Amino acid sequence: MNRGQDRLRSLLRRKNLDAVLFMSLENIRFLCGFTGSDGALIYGTEEAVFLSDSRYEEQAGGEVRGAVFQRYRKKIEGIARSLRAFRVKRLGFEASALTWETYQRLKEHLSRVTLVPLAAEISGLRARKEPAEIEKIRRAIQIASESFLDTLSRLKPGVREKTAGDFLEFRMKRKGGEGPSFPIIVASGPRAALPHGKASGKAMRKGETVVIDFGVRHQGYNSDETKTLILGRPDARQKKVYDLVRRAQERAIRAIRPGVSVRSIDREAREVISRAGYGHFFGHGTGHGIGLAVHEAPTLSPRGSGVVEAGMVFSVEPGVYLPGWGGVRLEDLVLVTDRGCEVLTYLSKELKDNILKG
Amino acid sequence: MNRGQDRLRSLLRRKNLDAVLFMSLENIRFLCGFTGSDGALIYGTEEAVFLSDSRYEEQAGGEVRGAVFQRYRKKIEGIARSLRAFRVKRLGFEASALTWETYQRLKEHLSRVTLVPLAAEISGLRARKEPAEIEKIRRAIQIASESFLDTLSRLKPGVREKTAGDFLEFRMKRKGGEGPSFPIIVASGPRAALPHGKASGKAMRKGETVVIDFGVRHQGYNSDETKTLILGRPDARQKKVYDLVRRAQERAIRAIRPGVSVRSIDREAREVISRAGYGHFFGHGTGHGIGLAVHEAPTLSPRGSGVVEAGMVFSVEPGVYLPGWGGVRLEDLVLVTDRGCEVLTYLSKELKDNILKG
Repeated sequence: MNRGQDRLRSLLRRKNLDAVLFMSLENIRFLCGFTGSDGALIYGTEEAVFLSDSRYEEQAGGEVRGAVFQRYRKKIEGIARSLRAFRVKRLGFEASALTWETYQRLKEHLSRVTLVPLAAEISGLRARKEPAEIEKIRRAIQIASESFLDTLSRLKPGVREKTAGDFLEFRMKRKGGEGPSFPIIVASGPRAALPHGKASGKAMRKGETVVIDFGVRHQGYNSDETKTLILGRPDARQKKVYDLVRRAQERAIRAIRPGVSVRSIDREAREVISRAGYGHFFGHGTGHGIGLAVHEAPTLSPRGSGVVEAGMVFSVEPGVYLPGWGGVRLEDLVLVTDRGCEVLTYLSKELKDNILKG
Repeated sequence: MNRGQDRLRSLLRRKNLDAVLFMSLENIRFLCGFTGSDGALIYGTEEAVFLSDSRYEEQAGGEVRGAVFQRYRKKIEGIARSLRAFRVKRLGFEASALTWETYQRLKEHLSRVTLVPLAAEISGLRARKEPAEIEKIRRAIQIASESFLDTLSRLKPGVREKTAGDFLEFRMKRKGGEGPSFPIIVASGPRAALPHGKASGKAMRKGETVVIDFGVRHQGYNSDETKTLILGRPDARQKKVYDLVRRAQERAIRAIRPGVSVRSIDREAREVISRAGYGHFFGHGTGHGIGLAVHEAPTLSPRGSGVVEAGMVFSVEPGVYLPGWGGVRLEDLVLVTDRGCEVLTYLSKELKDNILKG
């Protein structure tokens, strides 16, 4: 049994639940191994059932562990039938994944069952990673990093952002990656002011900053990293903003250790940037957990809650975005250790290593 | 104003709503043009507001049409503030997209607002395509088809499914596609019995059937098509199953015209397969609408509802899957015309054109 299943059992006891219904694919994969794209998992105190339709019957047979398979023709009806067979009276559900419509239909079919919303309790299940999960993330990082290094020679004036992004993605796949974790961001010059500037048809130009945010999926687990390159000798402002973001990132990373609140880590990065007068231009959170989903618990932001725990893997990615001028973001993934953290991503974030001449 | 906005206005009147809140990215893109990955659209009787956070402010400025921009720091609070400013009393919402948690939080912030769930009314907004949308789908099909033809020489014994799938995807991107519409399926031999068999490390072998299901996104719009190839001279069973699926597909396509129920089109295909004794091995619906989402209204299945209308674009994709042996699926996209339908995908589905010798 993995740590998540352990926690789930204690959650069942604590909330006095007979079972929890999972319909999000990441949780289903995490808890029983199914990698397809439709199904439901009922995880009870005594047993677990994975339900899907005929399209996935054969695949489930090969993948699912720790749950018996049941086939349905109509999803909600099939789930309801299983729950009745188990005499479930109190059922937990994923409050942030179940749609309003599915909730209503479940209620109609389960008039005698009390439905108990679970939010933070559920998102916490996957937050602390096990060694096997960390290995998959490490491997994803390695594939992404090697692919990035292969792409460096294509990052030069005259080349379109999209051409560079496509090449990076192709290399990731050639090295065995399952696919990019999200649409690769290559944002050059003024486009670097868009924190989510997907690679476009714009050609990169000499002297521009280029923000490249990329990640790859390996055995379901994601990497995520952002480099900011300067195509030529950096000017004073580029140096200043880069240096500021780098200091903010370092400060946040130094603050990470078990027991520290996620908010305080965000604050460490934010203070550096605010004190320099750029607080208004850092509009997003400092980081997010990563694993089977690219964004999962914990959330490191001024509104985040909870504390850092050993085994968590999350990003540290402050940025400064100046409309019309451009931006800088630096992102690393860290693994929380017993006393601090290990930076898992290994490509240099030093300015001197991110100046491309030529 | 596009046809969807027209329908939305009449929906507002019919349901006596002051506004509809959209949070699904496809509907947001459809109604106001925003292509980013977070935000909300409030579409009222008098005006429309698009809300997002600082990450997307610049992008929204360049993309959003027909709605004013408002920035929020906290999403639900920002939406609630806007709704109060507009004095919205009856608010429609996307019942099948809003999560239970978001619904509850909205309710807490909008105690005096009546929230009205919209399901089929909303999914119908995008079902009938406008000429500009159809052009984008046609272009996506063209990119996908040319890429497929480029890949043909790699579809041969000894080559791994994934190698072929990756090459197909790379070609799609080289030809300007934004990315695959879904993970490309390349399922050979016994794996072809998995209706959703993502390309794996398995090598294709002489004599095997290979199901290839692929699509590409172009300006947000998707294509979707399935070819089944035979690597060598087909044996009697391969011929029989292929021919059966092809006849089922042709029967369904011939039945398509405005006013016909979606269920009856599914029935046309299903009857051919059932009568031949293979009904149990066709476990999915006959087709699905396609556009900004790969799966959208209408749903052609035994449980689908509604009738076919001119301008709809959907797939026709019967299949037969025999565990241990393999499977055949043939999928085309059709555009419903005034009197029948036009098959938009143009790669041949005749058996003789799908035998690869060599």
